[in-house]
Amino acid sequence: MSTRKITAAIVGGTGYTGVELIRLLLGHPGAELVAVTSRGESGRRLDALFGNLRGRTALTFSEPDPARLAEADVVFFATPNGIAMQQVPDLLARGTRVIDLAADFRIRDVAVWQTWYGMTHACPDLLKQAVYGLPEIHREQIRDARLVANPGCYPTAVQLGFKPLLSAGKVDFSSLIADTKSGVSGAGRKADTALLLAEVSESFRAYAVPGHRHLPEISQGLSAMAGEDVGLTFVPHLVPMIRGIQATLYAQLTGEAGDLQALYEKEYEAEPFVDVMAEGSHPETRTVRGNNTCRISVHRPQGGDRVVVLSVIDNLVKGAAGQAVQNMNIMFGLDETAGLDLMAVMP
Amino acid sequence: MSTRKITAAIVGGTGYTGVELIRLLLGHPGAELVAVTSRGESGRRLDALFGNLRGRTALTFSEPDPARLAEADVVFFATPNGIAMQQVPDLLARGTRVIDLAADFRIRDVAVWQTWYGMTHACPDLLKQAVYGLPEIHREQIRDARLVANPGCYPTAVQLGFKPLLSAGKVDFSSLIADTKSGVSGAGRKADTALLLAEVSESFRAYAVPGHRHLPEISQGLSAMAGEDVGLTFVPHLVPMIRGIQATLYAQLTGEAGDLQALYEKEYEAEPFVDVMAEGSHPETRTVRGNNTCRISVHRPQGGDRVVVLSVIDNLVKGAAGQAVQNMNIMFGLDETAGLDLMAVMP
Amino acid sequence: MSTRKITAAIVGGTGYTGVELIRLLLGHPGAELVAVTSRGESGRRLDALFGNLRGRTALTFSEPDPARLAEADVVFFATPNGIAMQQVPDLLARGTRVIDLAADFRIRDVAVWQTWYGMTHACPDLLKQAVYGLPEIHREQIRDARLVANPGCYPTAVQLGFKPLLSAGKVDFSSLIADTKSGVSGAGRKADTALLLAEVSESFRAYAVPGHRHLPEISQGLSAMAGEDVGLTFVPHLVPMIRGIQATLYAQLTGEAGDLQALYEKEYEAEPFVDVMAEGSHPETRTVRGNNTCRISVHRPQGGDRVVVLSVIDNLVKGAAGQAVQNMNIMFGLDETAGLDLMAVMP
Amino acid sequence: MSTRKITAAIVGGTGYTGVELIRLLLGHPGAELVAVTSRGESGRRLDALFGNLRGRTALTFSEPDPARLAEADVVFFATPNGIAMQQVPDLLARGTRVIDLAADFRIRDVAVWQTWYGMTHACPDLLKQAVYGLPEIHREQIRDARLVANPGCYPTAVQLGFKPLLSAGKVDFSSLIADTKSGVSGAGRKADTALLLAEVSESFRAYAVPGHRHLPEISQGLSAMAGEDVGLTFVPHLVPMIRGIQATLYAQLTGEAGDLQALYEKEYEAEPFVDVMAEGSHPETRTVRGNNTCRISVHRPQGGDRVVVLSVIDNLVKGAAGQAVQNMNIMFGLDETAGLDLMAVMP
Repeated sequence: MSTRKITAAIVGGTGYTGVELIRLLLGHPGAELVAVTSRGESGRRLDALFGNLRGRTALTFSEPDPARLAEADVVFFATPNGIAMQQVPDLLARGTRVIDLAADFRIRDVAVWQTWYGMTHACPDLLKQAVYGLPEIHREQIRDARLVANPGCYPTAVQLGFKPLLSAGKVDFSSLIADTKSGVSGAGRKADTALLLAEVSESFRAYAVPGHRHLPEISQGLSAMAGEDVGLTFVPHLVPMIRGIQATLYAQLTGEAGDLQALYEKEYEAEPFVDVMAEGSHPETRTVRGNNTCRISVHRPQGGDRVVVLSVIDNLVKGAAGQAVQNMNIMFGLDETAGLDLMAVMP
Repeated sequence: MSTRKITAAIVGGTGYTGVELIRLLLGHPGAELVAVTSRGESGRRLDALFGNLRGRTALTFSEPDPARLAEADVVFFATPNGIAMQQVPDLLARGTRVIDLAADFRIRDVAVWQTWYGMTHACPDLLKQAVYGLPEIHREQIRDARLVANPGCYPTAVQLGFKPLLSAGKVDFSSLIADTKSGVSGAGRKADTALLLAEVSESFRAYAVPGHRHLPEISQGLSAMAGEDVGLTFVPHLVPMIRGIQATLYAQLTGEAGDLQALYEKEYEAEPFVDVMAEGSHPETRTVRGNNTCRISVHRPQGGDRVVVLSVIDNLVKGAAGQAVQNMNIMFGLDETAGLDLMAVMP
Repeated sequence: MSTRKITAAIVGGTGYTGVELIRLLLGHPGAELVAVTSRGESGRRLDALFGNLRGRTALTFSEPDPARLAEADVVFFATPNGIAMQQVPDLLARGTRVIDLAADFRIRDVAVWQTWYGMTHACPDLLKQAVYGLPEIHREQIRDARLVANPGCYPTAVQLGFKPLLSAGKVDFSSLIADTKSGVSGAGRKADTALLLAEVSESFRAYAVPGHRHLPEISQGLSAMAGEDVGLTFVPHLVPMIRGIQATLYAQLTGEAGDLQALYEKEYEAEPFVDVMAEGSHPETRTVRGNNTCRISVHRPQGGDRVVVLSVIDNLVKGAAGQAVQNMNIMFGLDETAGLDLMAVMP
Repeated sequence: MSTRKITAAIVGGTGYTGVELIRLLLGHPGAELVAVTSRGESGRRLDALFGNLRGRTALTFSEPDPARLAEADVVFFATPNGIAMQQVPDLLARGTRVIDLAADFRIRDVAVWQTWYGMTHACPDLLKQAVYGLPEIHREQIRDARLVANPGCYPTAVQLGFKPLLSAGKVDFSSLIADTKSGVSGAGRKADTALLLAEVSESFRAYAVPGHRHLPEISQGLSAMAGEDVGLTFVPHLVPMIRGIQATLYAQLTGEAGDLQALYEKEYEAEPFVDVMAEGSHPETRTVRGNNTCRISVHRPQGGDRVVVLSVIDNLVKGAAGQAVQNMNIMFGLDETAGLDLMAVMP
């Protein structure tokens, strides 16, 4: 294998997913970040916008230019929904591989996508070609993928948490519940009064209970695990902190539970980024802050027929940029953990 | 009616429930705070411990003295579990009425209490006499109660949230779920590294999933509403904020839902401290910070057979000190809202 | 004295100063809130924007209409800088009294104002008539004022902290330092990415060190106390919290210090809203959250010739809306503390 | 040079400085962590106490055993003040090199130390041998040091911020002011109600204004730079966040300022861990969270004769563990930046 580094470009690098990708790629031993585009910040140094990059890169944001982007081995889209689908066909045609961190290619059924995202899909034919980038489930397809749809943050925490139960057919598929909680960075870096510190600090609330866009994505994934359509109630909440997601998952056992702890440990024993904790444990989001791990514990309170799974990730890492780098590593035959061995900072 | 003010004393006034009671009683138009006891802080001015009381009271903490306490019309216990039961029989015998903010008198079945609280009850005979102080359910009994067991914080939010559904028999009683989230003050003012800002800020986690002491209290209340034993899964979480509880409640409809919004509005239309929000709403804990309201919204996501109820309170007010004052008002024939009309401070 | 309540209107009630004014006026025993204007939110209920107002008012935001505003006894401007000066002449002509919470009338020298605020003043002739609404200094003039310029938040904390030292001529006037720290609500309720929780939480920084608009306002006030132009270095910082300002003030003693503690206690002994703490104390901003007090302590570290004064306020109360209500009380002959007796909520 | 890794041990690894040292040493390419002692946690796995270490180490806390500790090339003390001085003479005698992160060896004048720390020094003769481990000032002495006194957090931020001004003799040495602000982790991981989230969140306050133990340490360092005794006023404050220190420094120019920006840039141009920002900048503590950089900007507001320096560090990294690793790198001839190239995580 040649020692040449993979060249990577990022389209839309001014959001939280973008800066996290920049951080991870700058520290990646096998990749080189060659371009970060932004129409709004074009010409400005990256480290003028993000002070943590001072001394690490002299790159400036550039205008998006398909020809230049296509020179990279891989292009990441860290753009709002609906942007990647405009540019991806051209990049794929030029031979570049693409990882989209937005939602454009996550839903296989274009009608469902159009209903939830409220726009017409620009390249529905690519949906079949796109591989859903959850390595713990689709690792083999990711290897050869030209286009990876990087999963959403909630969908990552929920799917990894439910997988062993659903794959083993232990629970009632029609009454799944995902009560999820996210730090504020999950809403992105946008000028919105509802996300001001003075609005969200020292408060807690649910949102989008009538319907959140991650619902069809999660349902699609869980249904594939179950082998049939699942019934899912999905309730997201906003936590007054910057990073972190916890999914608290509820499922009804349908027969003998067996050893659920062993089931989870076995499922994930070879996975570098899923950590099943000992029985009786409660994962904390801070233990994965800045880190690509999904940390899980499984409970059966009072020995009853209800299973409770606790699953935590960093929404910007395993829920976005870290998983994207993990996908890149798989696609290009690098060590899957390359550039992703950073420990969480505690306290 | 005489214009004499009710005299009130607090046993154990150095915790968060204590200082909140002090604040509410000092501002109460019909009550006078005459004593606050603390073995550890005896002789110290209240406002030396709690700076917000400066200029409001010259009281000092005093040693607990039954004879002096008995001179008050009502004694509040804001002590750790297991203290009130040692002193209440004597106070009741002296003719004083008691409101216990701890758990000593909340559970009617002494065996259940002893199992969950790990001690022998000192006066099990009083359990029958004690009235569970949730005014929206037991208002009439509270009027004449000599001993009120003030509900726990989670139990208040959960019971008020579930009540209309259970009373109307709309849902499956065997599969109720309460996913609850609390600010850190719920754990009390104690020297515990696990509650340091450096430990709990910027993190989120569940705790006590195998079993939390509020479970039997909630189950007892919900079973009474349902008229039969309920099955409840109760999962509490710690939120990086000072005050506030949100309970997210899940129940399965068993038949025609009917108009759930109307059901909730009718249930609470006359209640001064329960606010049912419009359909599609999401209550925020900050809107009840320092305030005695329980704010509720009811959802039926995608029109399915799962009901989701969102219920928020301030754990130290409607979940503790405010509810205790509400109980006092009822017991002494005062306006139920007296001293409790303070608006939440926002932002 | 008649028992008729003062009628009050607010122009621009959708910001943090606005909602705090609404809260204070709704709870005021001698005032009635009759109108709150907002072009952007016209027709919307106040409590739809600010959940803490649910159950307290049925008012809706209205279009600003001079004729209707003029029917109120007093009109508060809680608008951005530069708005009040457009409307105040007309209101004054109609006989209404005005309290401006913005900066339009705070600086007596119109050239200085125009330099720092970057616009032409619309009614410079009113600057002489305007009374600077710091009651501890200008109480007598406020009584008869038609137009009150409510002080800025930093200027309130700094001026009250320095006043005894400057009035007594104890310190070098040329080398004063005000190192000030403010919660994020001081920047207002505006859609600005720099104020997102994900940007300002878990971080600390100075800002506007080259020059902040409160500098000329503070210098004007301190110079009046000193009887000569003062030299002031003013450095503001942003604290990751919602409310609260601390000013840490430094001054060089020029001769015998004398008893500084006594100096401060005597200066403020009759003031209802300034609390001088005991020697060796450190005020905390949380003790004045939601409260109109300025809490001060004075230090002389190691007995040297440097005085350090610590002064804390709630930027939205004594630093804005509370002080405005205090001014209203003075202007209309009400008890100066009316509606301002709310204790801070702790924890 | 041999490729053998340096072996390192930590005495007292259960505090915040300890876990940060563990994190840095586990990720260090040239060092191996061989033991972490703790009397209280002996036998427990490190990752049971600190969840971020899961999957990174199988080490357990061990009882402190001088013979075993002495097998390491270097022993770090992350213990409370007064512990290291009991054990260091024996370790030095056994040939091990020592880096003390506590205060035992920071003050050269034993009488001063004993006054401020309130105990008798156990080995005053070692004070002369100890090297003060601020590499930007004492790099050469550190190379050969057997015993390094790692600087305090505030002293690091303040000394690096003042150094260019004092070394160049630009300012009045008798009237220096350091107004400093620290996140809560600076107070350590101890069971203290004053550090609970419910106490320190949403509040700001100064502390220890009459005298803080870092004052003599800073004065000693600044006096050495100035070549004479300096007069310093030092006021620390507590910020409601986990990590980060900002020092806001004030000094009076005594003559022509010259180009202060150039002075600072030149002073630190070769320093890998001091970043002088462009004129007019304001450093943010979050840009150095988890990172070993000291980020500085220098201001001269309104072109006057007062200089304002803003200096930020992460109190647990450049203010403690990171600086200790930097010292280790220097002592053992490793690349000074080895193991310290981690970028801050933003947001």
